[in-house]
Amino acid sequence: MPFRIEFQPLGLRLEIAREINALDAVRQAGINIMAVCGGEGTCGKCVIQILESTDTHHPTAADQKHLSSQQLDEGFRLACMTTLSTDTKIYVPGSSILEDQIMQTDGESHQHGLCPAITQQTISVEKAHLKDLTSDFSRIINAVGDQSLHADIRVLRRIPAILRGNDWQINLIMRENQIMHVTRDKLDTPLGLAVDVGSTKIACYLVDLDSGKTLTAKGVPNPQIAYGEDIMARLSYAGESPDNAEKLHMLTMTAIRQSAENMCRRVGCDPHEIVDYCLVGNTVMHHFVLDLPTESLAISPFVPAVTDSLYPPADGLHLTGIPGAGVFMPPVKAGFIGSDHLSFLLASGFGNDKRVRLGIDIGTNTEIALQANDRIVSVSTASGPAFEGAHIRFGMRASPGAIEHVKIFNNGETKIDVIGDQHPIGICGSGILDAVAQLRERGLLNQRGRLSKNNPCIQLDAHGKPFFTLSDTAEAVTLSQKDIDQILLAKGAIRAGIDILMDYLRITPKDIDEVVIAGAFGSYMLPEHAMGIGMLPTIPLERVKIVGNAAGAGAQMMLVNIQARRAAEMLAEKMEYLELTVYPEFSIFYANGIRA
Amino acid sequence: MPFRIEFQPLGLRLEIAREINALDAVRQAGINIMAVCGGEGTCGKCVIQILESTDTHHPTAADQKHLSSQQLDEGFRLACMTTLSTDTKIYVPGSSILEDQIMQTDGESHQHGLCPAITQQTISVEKAHLKDLTSDFSRIINAVGDQSLHADIRVLRRIPAILRGNDWQINLIMRENQIMHVTRDKLDTPLGLAVDVGSTKIACYLVDLDSGKTLTAKGVPNPQIAYGEDIMARLSYAGESPDNAEKLHMLTMTAIRQSAENMCRRVGCDPHEIVDYCLVGNTVMHHFVLDLPTESLAISPFVPAVTDSLYPPADGLHLTGIPGAGVFMPPVKAGFIGSDHLSFLLASGFGNDKRVRLGIDIGTNTEIALQANDRIVSVSTASGPAFEGAHIRFGMRASPGAIEHVKIFNNGETKIDVIGDQHPIGICGSGILDAVAQLRERGLLNQRGRLSKNNPCIQLDAHGKPFFTLSDTAEAVTLSQKDIDQILLAKGAIRAGIDILMDYLRITPKDIDEVVIAGAFGSYMLPEHAMGIGMLPTIPLERVKIVGNAAGAGAQMMLVNIQARRAAEMLAEKMEYLELTVYPEFSIFYANGIRA
Repeated sequence: MPFRIEFQPLGLRLEIAREINALDAVRQAGINIMAVCGGEGTCGKCVIQILESTDTHHPTAADQKHLSSQQLDEGFRLACMTTLSTDTKIYVPGSSILEDQIMQTDGESHQHGLCPAITQQTISVEKAHLKDLTSDFSRIINAVGDQSLHADIRVLRRIPAILRGNDWQINLIMRENQIMHVTRDKLDTPLGLAVDVGSTKIACYLVDLDSGKTLTAKGVPNPQIAYGEDIMARLSYAGESPDNAEKLHMLTMTAIRQSAENMCRRVGCDPHEIVDYCLVGNTVMHHFVLDLPTESLAISPFVPAVTDSLYPPADGLHLTGIPGAGVFMPPVKAGFIGSDHLSFLLASGFGNDKRVRLGIDIGTNTEIALQANDRIVSVSTASGPAFEGAHIRFGMRASPGAIEHVKIFNNGETKIDVIGDQHPIGICGSGILDAVAQLRERGLLNQRGRLSKNNPCIQLDAHGKPFFTLSDTAEAVTLSQKDIDQILLAKGAIRAGIDILMDYLRITPKDIDEVVIAGAFGSYMLPEHAMGIGMLPTIPLERVKIVGNAAGAGAQMMLVNIQARRAAEMLAEKMEYLELTVYPEFSIFYANGIRA
Repeated sequence: MPFRIEFQPLGLRLEIAREINALDAVRQAGINIMAVCGGEGTCGKCVIQILESTDTHHPTAADQKHLSSQQLDEGFRLACMTTLSTDTKIYVPGSSILEDQIMQTDGESHQHGLCPAITQQTISVEKAHLKDLTSDFSRIINAVGDQSLHADIRVLRRIPAILRGNDWQINLIMRENQIMHVTRDKLDTPLGLAVDVGSTKIACYLVDLDSGKTLTAKGVPNPQIAYGEDIMARLSYAGESPDNAEKLHMLTMTAIRQSAENMCRRVGCDPHEIVDYCLVGNTVMHHFVLDLPTESLAISPFVPAVTDSLYPPADGLHLTGIPGAGVFMPPVKAGFIGSDHLSFLLASGFGNDKRVRLGIDIGTNTEIALQANDRIVSVSTASGPAFEGAHIRFGMRASPGAIEHVKIFNNGETKIDVIGDQHPIGICGSGILDAVAQLRERGLLNQRGRLSKNNPCIQLDAHGKPFFTLSDTAEAVTLSQKDIDQILLAKGAIRAGIDILMDYLRITPKDIDEVVIAGAFGSYMLPEHAMGIGMLPTIPLERVKIVGNAAGAGAQMMLVNIQARRAAEMLAEKMEYLELTVYPEFSIFYANGIRA
């Protein structure tokens, strides 16, 4: 009996006819897993985690040799020693994969001044003697000339030894009038880390706070994905027990810490010289990062525990850095409007001028903001994960082997671009959008979103259901009516959000000066195709700006500039949140939005 | 060959002729040690710690049964199983003693207003619903009506569950505009602990911050004494390794924590409802409490790491309380002028008016302050531990068995008062002062401090050295010429301090409106005898005020009233420290002071 295997975090799915070795299955899915020994169970590299299975997978001797008992308890196994014969959900850790998933970390680059929260000052003080019995700390206050200077006990404990071992010279690392750390010498490169914590991926930017330059960027999968692909599943997992919630918190924090350490190693810096952090994310990620209770985010009315900006100590969040390093967490607006949206708007110039601006960050939840009439109103719409490849037969994330773009000719023939120039194994969001838009354009899809069964370019499956073939290789990549339905639901949700915002602020498409589109899918999609299927209203193409990971860009702005932090706080104050589901005639807007 | 046994923390010494069982030795020293089984090694109660010994004391089977391996490593043994035959220093823990050492915890009671740093407020907020998506924390801010309210992440984590489980009602525990903790219900009795951390004893006062009433007080020995009777010995021990310093820190903090827990148990309160602390002490104790480096306090010019007031979190100092509870540490002035002296002056009205005031806190170091001509000048003088019984043949602290007062008649006969109305085993400071003053008065001691060998009341020992017998019981308590020399050195140091202050501020004894005397010895001594031996200048007796543990009283004032904290900070600013050793003609003042 055929069964399905799902691979996370890539979101790939395989249908398999008979029992299969898990290593073969992973490879068949196109995932470049490590297996130095060639599947003999001796190298211990092809580690996978079995997340769900109707089968029991007893650890083999090889599993027991290479994996800890805790890992075994958590379902980790060597792929080569595992046989799959029923529906199974597998997590392939990044450490088992030869090449990283493509992770978008670049955002529109912005001119932003340098005004970091953390500054350094190296001072010399008078040596103590019997005629001058001033305490060590008072000497420092007098040398700096600021009586309001203060320091916590951990800093005070370090001062005497440094002064006496360094010829009465000391380097102060300060946040406003607080000495947060002291060292013998000036830090060569005070480092900052800006992080956009997405549900799927975590984008990290390592910044030199002396120059404001981003030294390196890195995207890693959010390991929480093993406990639910969408955030609702994770909220439900976290709600089951405090241990579960703690686990999700720790998984993400460990991933950020390790990513920071790897990036520091790459550029030859010491992660203990990280002096400041700025983290943005949707409200659920924000709460998981802060280990705040998430129960209220899981049920209506989806109220956050806190919305104000916070600046907790990094060590309390298990992040590396100098003692006293803090993590700036910009405000969130509502349960479904997080600091990533705020950061995106900040980086895109919202709140800076009077232009009519539409900002869209497409994801499983799509946040949309409209700036007009001196107001900024934001909505969040449940567009679902279709554009990330989920619920689509051959859908996958933008990874090697994914069809990224497709051209459909009048005769139904196609030309595909595959990520990594390899054999196609699936299709990602931008490819799906291309396909649906062109099927509509070529008349292969009607206004109600049905594939035209009578057209010879459309094939029929064994059950008489229509589908279109995108890539006619050994394992064909196809698009079914069901896949198209998913896409239309997703784009309908986005369009309904846009239309309601325009209705609410009495704006028509021609009034819009600029459309800013962010997010991974948004970076690769063609705006003309998004208009073609009615995801966006029709607007002159030159007014559409693709900004990549703008949330990451905003996080970097706030990392290097405290004025940007204040601007973000003011933006959050000014922003209004509109709850779509209580908007009059929401369902009519939605029904109109779905139309192809 | 005879050998000596020293018992801490009482400071008692025994001279023993031959091998002795340690339980017998402890009892012979008059210490009421527990031994339920009568010395059979079965009850495990008579625990002692061998601090120094030229012998090795291998653990017996009984030791191993009743003590942990760590305790055995640290020299703990059952007294009844231990044989002593060489010079040995023994610590008798409070837990092994049936009755506590007399610990002075009462100070002059003062009228002081109630204005605690920590306040409570129980509020109700609007329940969240789809038309009001304000975050939990914003609801609280709005209900209190103070937009500057803030809370750290540990508090924010607790809020959602309390609000939802308590019908949207919550109790806020606040310090200024910071919410430091939240609970379902109002704390019945918000507790505060004021502590005077002395080198010898720790005086603790448990206060109800709602009423300002002190619920109970308790004195416990400072267990650091096992590592040095005087603070210089402890500084030297701490300087040997960071582990040693950490040990001294932990010993004191553990003693305070346990004392707090015991006191809470006694009055039926929960130590986790302690919301605030105020700790005072000499500068060395202040640094040990804060785990600050003490190296600079051990060598000239004796400069503290920090002198400003601090308010670190209680949990970081290993103290019990609500999460977020702080420990107010008033300023210290110099290496030998601590916050206990400041607290004593605050409680005694220094800085409040223009009266000419002399404040004296007699101890191993005696701190003296003179208020005159709108100035307050303090000195510290190394008076040594003679008044605490050290370096005196039969000297001991004010414990059961100590001669507290003595009357010497013209015929050389004596009448003694013994603490606990028991057989005398030694003599404490106030008794020694009585004796020396009356020996001088009766002409048995001349102006140069020599016992008159020709007087029949003075006896001579085997070496022809004179001594006076105070108590002619089975084991006589006597006072030798050497003992008297020690007392004269001690009182000379005190008198030199007073004279130099008067010289510095151009004051004569008749200008002095009030002499305030604090400290354990100061409480029991007769001022006329202190004047009789020249420790104090001659001043009308009605101007002398004995205030007991005034430092403890000041700590209680600061605990319950933040204005008292500000007053203490201003007093510390105003106070001047005068370094005696660099004062012109210091040695002449000292030589004059010693004269009997």
